[in-house]
Amino acid sequence: MATCSTDLVALLGPNATAAADYICNKFSDVSFAVDNTYLLFSAYLNFFMQLGFAMFCAGSVRAKNTINVVLITVLDAAIAGLFYYLLGFAFAFGSPSNGGFIGRRHFGLRSIPSSSFDYSNFLYHWAFAVSAAGIASGSMAERTQFVAHLIYSPFFTGFVYPVVSHWFWAGDGWASAFRTDNNFLFGSGVIDFAGSGVVHMVGGIAGLWGALIEGPRIGRFDNSGKSVALRGHNSTLVVLGTFILWFGWYGFNPGSFNRISNFYTSGNYYGQWSAVGRTAVTTTLAGCTGALTTLLGKRILTSHWNVTDACSGLLGGFAAITAGCSVVEPWAAIICGFVAALVLIGCNKLAEKVEFDDPLEVAQLHGGCRYGLLMGGGGRLLAAQVVQVLVIVGWVSATMGSLFYFLNKFGLLRISAEDEMVGMDLTRHGGLAYNYSDEDEESNKHATQMRRIGSL
Amino acid sequence: MATCSTDLVALLGPNATAAADYICNKFSDVSFAVDNTYLLFSAYLNFFMQLGFAMFCAGSVRAKNTINVVLITVLDAAIAGLFYYLLGFAFAFGSPSNGGFIGRRHFGLRSIPSSSFDYSNFLYHWAFAVSAAGIASGSMAERTQFVAHLIYSPFFTGFVYPVVSHWFWAGDGWASAFRTDNNFLFGSGVIDFAGSGVVHMVGGIAGLWGALIEGPRIGRFDNSGKSVALRGHNSTLVVLGTFILWFGWYGFNPGSFNRISNFYTSGNYYGQWSAVGRTAVTTTLAGCTGALTTLLGKRILTSHWNVTDACSGLLGGFAAITAGCSVVEPWAAIICGFVAALVLIGCNKLAEKVEFDDPLEVAQLHGGCRYGLLMGGGGRLLAAQVVQVLVIVGWVSATMGSLFYFLNKFGLLRISAEDEMVGMDLTRHGGLAYNYSDEDEESNKHATQMRRIGSL
Amino acid sequence: MATCSTDLVALLGPNATAAADYICNKFSDVSFAVDNTYLLFSAYLNFFMQLGFAMFCAGSVRAKNTINVVLITVLDAAIAGLFYYLLGFAFAFGSPSNGGFIGRRHFGLRSIPSSSFDYSNFLYHWAFAVSAAGIASGSMAERTQFVAHLIYSPFFTGFVYPVVSHWFWAGDGWASAFRTDNNFLFGSGVIDFAGSGVVHMVGGIAGLWGALIEGPRIGRFDNSGKSVALRGHNSTLVVLGTFILWFGWYGFNPGSFNRISNFYTSGNYYGQWSAVGRTAVTTTLAGCTGALTTLLGKRILTSHWNVTDACSGLLGGFAAITAGCSVVEPWAAIICGFVAALVLIGCNKLAEKVEFDDPLEVAQLHGGCRYGLLMGGGGRLLAAQVVQVLVIVGWVSATMGSLFYFLNKFGLLRISAEDEMVGMDLTRHGGLAYNYSDEDEESNKHATQMRRIGSL
Repeated sequence: MATCSTDLVALLGPNATAAADYICNKFSDVSFAVDNTYLLFSAYLNFFMQLGFAMFCAGSVRAKNTINVVLITVLDAAIAGLFYYLLGFAFAFGSPSNGGFIGRRHFGLRSIPSSSFDYSNFLYHWAFAVSAAGIASGSMAERTQFVAHLIYSPFFTGFVYPVVSHWFWAGDGWASAFRTDNNFLFGSGVIDFAGSGVVHMVGGIAGLWGALIEGPRIGRFDNSGKSVALRGHNSTLVVLGTFILWFGWYGFNPGSFNRISNFYTSGNYYGQWSAVGRTAVTTTLAGCTGALTTLLGKRILTSHWNVTDACSGLLGGFAAITAGCSVVEPWAAIICGFVAALVLIGCNKLAEKVEFDDPLEVAQLHGGCRYGLLMGGGGRLLAAQVVQVLVIVGWVSATMGSLFYFLNKFGLLRISAEDEMVGMDLTRHGGLAYNYSDEDEESNKHATQMRRIGSL
Repeated sequence: MATCSTDLVALLGPNATAAADYICNKFSDVSFAVDNTYLLFSAYLNFFMQLGFAMFCAGSVRAKNTINVVLITVLDAAIAGLFYYLLGFAFAFGSPSNGGFIGRRHFGLRSIPSSSFDYSNFLYHWAFAVSAAGIASGSMAERTQFVAHLIYSPFFTGFVYPVVSHWFWAGDGWASAFRTDNNFLFGSGVIDFAGSGVVHMVGGIAGLWGALIEGPRIGRFDNSGKSVALRGHNSTLVVLGTFILWFGWYGFNPGSFNRISNFYTSGNYYGQWSAVGRTAVTTTLAGCTGALTTLLGKRILTSHWNVTDACSGLLGGFAAITAGCSVVEPWAAIICGFVAALVLIGCNKLAEKVEFDDPLEVAQLHGGCRYGLLMGGGGRLLAAQVVQVLVIVGWVSATMGSLFYFLNKFGLLRISAEDEMVGMDLTRHGGLAYNYSDEDEESNKHATQMRRIGSL
Repeated sequence: MATCSTDLVALLGPNATAAADYICNKFSDVSFAVDNTYLLFSAYLNFFMQLGFAMFCAGSVRAKNTINVVLITVLDAAIAGLFYYLLGFAFAFGSPSNGGFIGRRHFGLRSIPSSSFDYSNFLYHWAFAVSAAGIASGSMAERTQFVAHLIYSPFFTGFVYPVVSHWFWAGDGWASAFRTDNNFLFGSGVIDFAGSGVVHMVGGIAGLWGALIEGPRIGRFDNSGKSVALRGHNSTLVVLGTFILWFGWYGFNPGSFNRISNFYTSGNYYGQWSAVGRTAVTTTLAGCTGALTTLLGKRILTSHWNVTDACSGLLGGFAAITAGCSVVEPWAAIICGFVAALVLIGCNKLAEKVEFDDPLEVAQLHGGCRYGLLMGGGGRLLAAQVVQVLVIVGWVSATMGSLFYFLNKFGLLRISAEDEMVGMDLTRHGGLAYNYSDEDEESNKHATQMRRIGSL
């Protein structure tokens, strides 16, 4: 706005200062309207990913735990709503921060809108917090106490996640590439445009600790340690969830620009709208390549065409490109998706070998598929990325790892073997997710109930 | 636009009238483009709620009536498309109206676009009509004749609902807060920003009369009058529907501003984009609080963690905030969601006591959760809200109540007991919704058929 | 932009050239931002239709082939991602083209963004390619080898489809209504605004050849040639898919304007935003009418209210209006939807008579429902439309028909009768889509497996 007025006064002459201001103010208003439209709808899409995750999870677990996992996805979103409002946003973006470590303003959205943030920014980042929480919860599916969830989810979305996002995304985060003072770590800061590290890795490492501490589901590995697939109960839901995640990722990645109306004075394109569009394209290509690579790779290894593998490969490609989506060329996005798929296949092999059980492969997928670091940067940028990996692993291990450790110690983490065999829907959630038999006739009732418990 | 030109001429000098007009026209064009983009995508989201409702309903009913309820959601949208186009929009917004009671222009979208309305406005309000119809139909699920639906749905979306929306939303509605002549009822008009009353209560009261007149489903209350849960057949669908409704509510509530490019000359924020964003935030927080409150409240009452309750609480929070979403502070939205959840729990208890059966709790949820009236207004505003409740109850009872009464009298409302036991999918819709058995082999066919009828 | 500057200089005086340029450049930037926001979100919606198609297909086939059809929808999108990026977009829009037949620039998005195209255009047209491929695949469901799919899908989305879109949509396509040199075929070019021909008919004809060459599914017609319904396994999925397609169609049809900020100097409305809104309205009305007509028509013919018919009628109405959606009046859209529904019912009757089996009625729906040609044009326009039908039939038959013929000849098209009876999920995709029984206990395992193969 200021630049606009200065420029226009120079052109219209000194008598036209007020006119120039007037015109430039109008442009500023219109830009706000466009940018907020862009950001709000991106936030809606970003949030919608939680439904994708809910359906992906539901389809990937056994029928007897369906209610448990879908209820948790609703809760993660609701808990994040309250705690990111009360605390999280302030810890993440409340400048000036305490030494670049943690923010300290805007608790309960006080003083919002400010010159830096509007409500739309809160909504957008709340959706990220929801995603991170969903990733963590997914790894621990089918064997975690509901009460454990009620404890770790607020802690995670209100504190652990926001602090990391402060470091790498806030205007005064110590390792942020968006520092306003240009005093960047290693000269560039850590480039994590849309959260490969901040969202996916934070969620993935949290889930990894949870899954590691509580151990694999009963029956996941046989007595000799051989991996036994515990197949999910509904492949259609897996694909439903995958497509919704794909759709939502267009809010996640291109939406991370937050604004679309910026004009570029240099570079081979004209404005931020092109950069936004290119980000949507690189995201698409990385995912597509990941899906095809995994499908073909697993075909060779297992001799059938596996839909879950194709979906995981797609999501792995998306997760991998998320760091560099705004800067890589489309062809590089294809390579990124290809490498991510190979890493995912490798990580899954490794997980089987070490008897690590993650019903959704989320830890492998979100923790493992990190290739922004290999793309387009020199040594210093690489150093910055390595630092990001290390500090995220350290921070999330220290906080979430400890929490899970103590929850486990006090018997609050893992459900009993009986509950696990019967399933949590019957034991904790008042009944099974699916009731295809008629319960109208009182006489049939007991029989039905028996059949249900017996056969499901 | 006019203001813009006057302002700019004053600044550029009298010789620049044409230039000022030219520039201001351009700004006006851009604003139209932004605002229509905003409104159209909000309308799409708003419409998408009908899918959420379809899935929520499907999951909440028994398997044997699945086709019936999902077909009705498609029909409600299609019938509203025709009748809101032919009549509804004209009754709602065809100024000048007959004494503030009913509009009388724009039948079949004649003279659209006008200076007040564009096609996007029609589309947006059609989506509201669909929602209201969906709410009404939901209450009457599992026991209403299909033909009754074909009669009341056009009447409702073409006449009953539009008239109410005229009263409270049109520029010359008698109780509207948007009156262009500033001659407001009780000095303010009725504040119902996004339709807590106009959409949710109108739909809820219509459904209440339908459900009341046809009575509860067979088996819903035992001989001693004790409530017997008739569990829905698929919890995953309930959560799928809930998330889609959540997503769509961002079209419903923030979208109700219709425009996003307005600049504000006073107040603690800068433009309508902030108000839009804040509305998205208040909506989110009310829903999140409603979900958590209901989940915990029902946990205490029933000793299990119920996913349907959490979803209903979420939707109750949304419905409650819908009236005041644009004016309340975020913290007040949390209180609103909390109170709505308590009211919902209470209404459900009450419904059980009086043997009222609403398979989806919609009457309770959409009729009961009305707290705009408690928020942020003085005595005159409160009076206006009370008037709204009274006239909506009166009007919808007089029209829809009478219609359902006569349909019932002529045997067109409730299905036969035989049909109800077997389910409408088999008796009216050509077969069951689900066919998991193979019907290829001719020999198996009869057996399968028998088994199906017997066990489902 | 150029016009803007010329205009403004004339008004501000010759000394203000630089100021006029500056202001007009700002307007141009804002328009780019709005238009790209509009186009990108339209592209996202457009792409989201593939999920609608996936769910519609899944629900329409038998349970034993569910994984196969949903995996194919994922693959179609992924394959199109790579091949439309590498080749397709260049063949479609790489001007200057080879004599209006095929484009030859922008392979791998080289030189994008250009003055004509940005990344958002690629994304939008990729989504069209995905839709066309999905339509083709749907016709061949439940009996086509997976490897055939891996062969024809890249050929289709990378070459066959893009060439057609070049002819009718590119700035130098030989029959395009968007020719930049105004040298139109028959004076107008072929009006196919959003792809009734380019997308739906191309996909429909390709599918028709595939379905024709491989023949009907086993059991689809009995020994006397009588049609036997092979019912889909899940009506809820059909409705889920239908609503998502409806939602996405707002990206498909109104989105085809690509821009929303254009100002109109003549006509009865003000700017492109009104035309966009009207297109959304005509789309809605055609679909609604199609749904109601088919529902009532089939009620008369079959004496039950069929949900699949209502959904097909809805989609038929959409497909029919897609050609003329931007130019017809709302009342004409209703007629268009009505006629489309009658044609669809007729085509389905015809298909039964000639023993043509298309599990999703896609060939009938997308190939048959073509009524742009009857609307609003004189003889020359009619001639242009007839030419479109002929060349599309010719081109797609020559390319895809030949491909399917040779695939069939080399035994690569149709699966074996054994595989067809058992279902592809068990034989090719590692297991059934649904697993509602508990597989935890090793002892149960074999029994479950047996039961599964036996009963599903």
